[in-house]
Amino acid sequence: MPQRTNGHFLLLLLQFQHFQSQFLIYERVQIITCQAVVAWKPNEPLSVETIEVAPPKTGEVRVKIVATGVCHTDVNLTAGYDPDVVFPVIFGHEGAGIVESVGDGVTKFKSGDHVIPLYIPQCFECRACKNPKTNLCTKTGSSHGKGVMQDGTARFTCKGQPVYHCMHTSTFSEYTVVEEIYLCKIDEAAPLEKVCLLGCGIPTGYGAALNAAQVEKGSSCAVWGLGAVGLAAAMGCKAAGATRIIGVDINPEKFKLAEKFGCTEFVNPNDYDKPIQQVLMAKTQGGLDYTFECVGNVLTMRAALESCCRGWGVSVIVGVAESGREISTRPFYLIAGRTWKGTAFGGWKSVESVPKLVSKYMNKEIMVDEFITHTLRIDEINEAFKLMKEGKSIRSVVIF
Amino acid sequence: MPQRTNGHFLLLLLQFQHFQSQFLIYERVQIITCQAVVAWKPNEPLSVETIEVAPPKTGEVRVKIVATGVCHTDVNLTAGYDPDVVFPVIFGHEGAGIVESVGDGVTKFKSGDHVIPLYIPQCFECRACKNPKTNLCTKTGSSHGKGVMQDGTARFTCKGQPVYHCMHTSTFSEYTVVEEIYLCKIDEAAPLEKVCLLGCGIPTGYGAALNAAQVEKGSSCAVWGLGAVGLAAAMGCKAAGATRIIGVDINPEKFKLAEKFGCTEFVNPNDYDKPIQQVLMAKTQGGLDYTFECVGNVLTMRAALESCCRGWGVSVIVGVAESGREISTRPFYLIAGRTWKGTAFGGWKSVESVPKLVSKYMNKEIMVDEFITHTLRIDEINEAFKLMKEGKSIRSVVIF
Repeated sequence: MPQRTNGHFLLLLLQFQHFQSQFLIYERVQIITCQAVVAWKPNEPLSVETIEVAPPKTGEVRVKIVATGVCHTDVNLTAGYDPDVVFPVIFGHEGAGIVESVGDGVTKFKSGDHVIPLYIPQCFECRACKNPKTNLCTKTGSSHGKGVMQDGTARFTCKGQPVYHCMHTSTFSEYTVVEEIYLCKIDEAAPLEKVCLLGCGIPTGYGAALNAAQVEKGSSCAVWGLGAVGLAAAMGCKAAGATRIIGVDINPEKFKLAEKFGCTEFVNPNDYDKPIQQVLMAKTQGGLDYTFECVGNVLTMRAALESCCRGWGVSVIVGVAESGREISTRPFYLIAGRTWKGTAFGGWKSVESVPKLVSKYMNKEIMVDEFITHTLRIDEINEAFKLMKEGKSIRSVVIF
Repeated sequence: MPQRTNGHFLLLLLQFQHFQSQFLIYERVQIITCQAVVAWKPNEPLSVETIEVAPPKTGEVRVKIVATGVCHTDVNLTAGYDPDVVFPVIFGHEGAGIVESVGDGVTKFKSGDHVIPLYIPQCFECRACKNPKTNLCTKTGSSHGKGVMQDGTARFTCKGQPVYHCMHTSTFSEYTVVEEIYLCKIDEAAPLEKVCLLGCGIPTGYGAALNAAQVEKGSSCAVWGLGAVGLAAAMGCKAAGATRIIGVDINPEKFKLAEKFGCTEFVNPNDYDKPIQQVLMAKTQGGLDYTFECVGNVLTMRAALESCCRGWGVSVIVGVAESGREISTRPFYLIAGRTWKGTAFGGWKSVESVPKLVSKYMNKEIMVDEFITHTLRIDEINEAFKLMKEGKSIRSVVIF
């Protein structure tokens, strides 16, 4: 009898496993129909559409996006100048969500995991991942910049045609598919509608101060552009112990909020009839220890460098300039001891660092909520873009 | 009697002291007539003239120059574009000599000391001197760039008119006067006709690798311009343990010598029909860890930056570009993790470091003799300039 019982149990177990396997296969092959923001052509209003999201293939993860921030880069990309953008496309790279299903070979994620998609991967294996000096993983794959996954196809379709991915994230969709190395698992207790901002803007500015510039205690800093990235840079300078943090912006409405992030004073270049670098050199008796360009304009990049002090001033380019534009200066500025550098995603090695930043937020060591000025629904996406273009928002979070 | 004897001795002593004091005063006020190379006007051949050198005033030291190197900067300065040069002028900033006399208040030097004049001072007191990150002492004085000493006058005269100082050194004169903070004492055993090169070219290139770039063991480097500064940069890269050092020059005659200083391979940009940065990116599978621009051309400065690798490449500007020229690049190169910096005098804190470099030479830890391709007399100065302009010399040393 015990043997028959055992056999019976074994049969049941096999049946259950078969069912489970079938269910998994069913789940895996299931195409999800959901809402997404599609940019059909450059420079046109975005459309909220019903799209189909194919299941994740080998090494891929399908994520239900719960919330996504709207970043200036999204606004810039809509113009269509970036050769890495293939239309029609789904933008968005500042999202947070929950794993819906995983493709073959995925070992680090499972359905239900809370995650943040990343636009810079971390494979832990390439020469860059093994070098502590950089976060720019080189395993971006052959599909990088082509709007498709590694197999050369997109997972999105709309009205019978493929819709392309962007920045490996495409978080302006209720469901997205990303490669495993472009994703990190975070604390399940973290509110996704807040920590989505840790997918881009906040780490970018905060890391520019802490990782790229390595701001020192007691130093003087200036930050050009008091949007989310600039405010996060100020927050980083403050965290590093800078005693003087000058906010530079032509929109004085930003100044009040900037104090909260550590700015100790403000300069509006429009208030002066001479170049801002001259104003700041005079104001600081010879220049600043660290400057941060968070605007994305080649002229402010120059101003930021030339506002640094002789001997040891460091200027970090954080903003992304219009394609084709060039920075320039007199070489004397560098010969005299200034350093010009830049950073992408604040120098954070993405997969390992973003979960730590989420923990820092949970421990109230960094601000996140304070960056959110608007919370909107998916069908209000064009309003979010408008608020950003008009300088009326710091960050809008779009909730699905 | 003993008292009278004592009195007699005392009298003799006082008389001797009086004589010594008179002699010192005599020595101090003595004007020295000697030979010097005078540049009367921009862009004219240099003239060897008989000049008068006034005694050193407070804080000044008069030095008998034994030998002086001829640097590219001297060649550039003759063009007269530099606003800091006042004609008629005595150039030269790579000299070595012996202290002839000192002015009031000078405590660190005495007659007979072997010395190297410095064009960057080290006061040990200013904010820059106290900061380990820089060698750019700020106590350059109010006379800086005016061709005169702190009291507003020059110590040189020729044919009844003042002749101006240059770079605080003016070593193209048999006797020169420098301020105490622009001078260092060196090992008396060091051959002055060799170690004079430690006043500029060799420390500049060597320090660019060791101090500015901080080249790491096993790294790849490229050096633009295989003159004395470039060869010294290669020597610095080798000392730091770089395994690949690419020399870049349009004069293939320099390649043979460059091997001695550590270059492992060579690239002549004229051998390619595409930009040198593309050639080097391909040759190094993605770019170099460190690059050095030792030419002084804004286009090679750009090429050097753009030949650095993504993530952690550092490019150091060492050459001095023509006044008014600007460097430029796409900001993407910096955003992608490259650093653009520069250095003056290789970042060495002058007074404390040059004597150490002399000791390194005496201990055969750095090469100096190998840089000297020609030794000439003072009346052959125009030949020395010609050799340099034609790329036929690395360093000519002029002996008085």
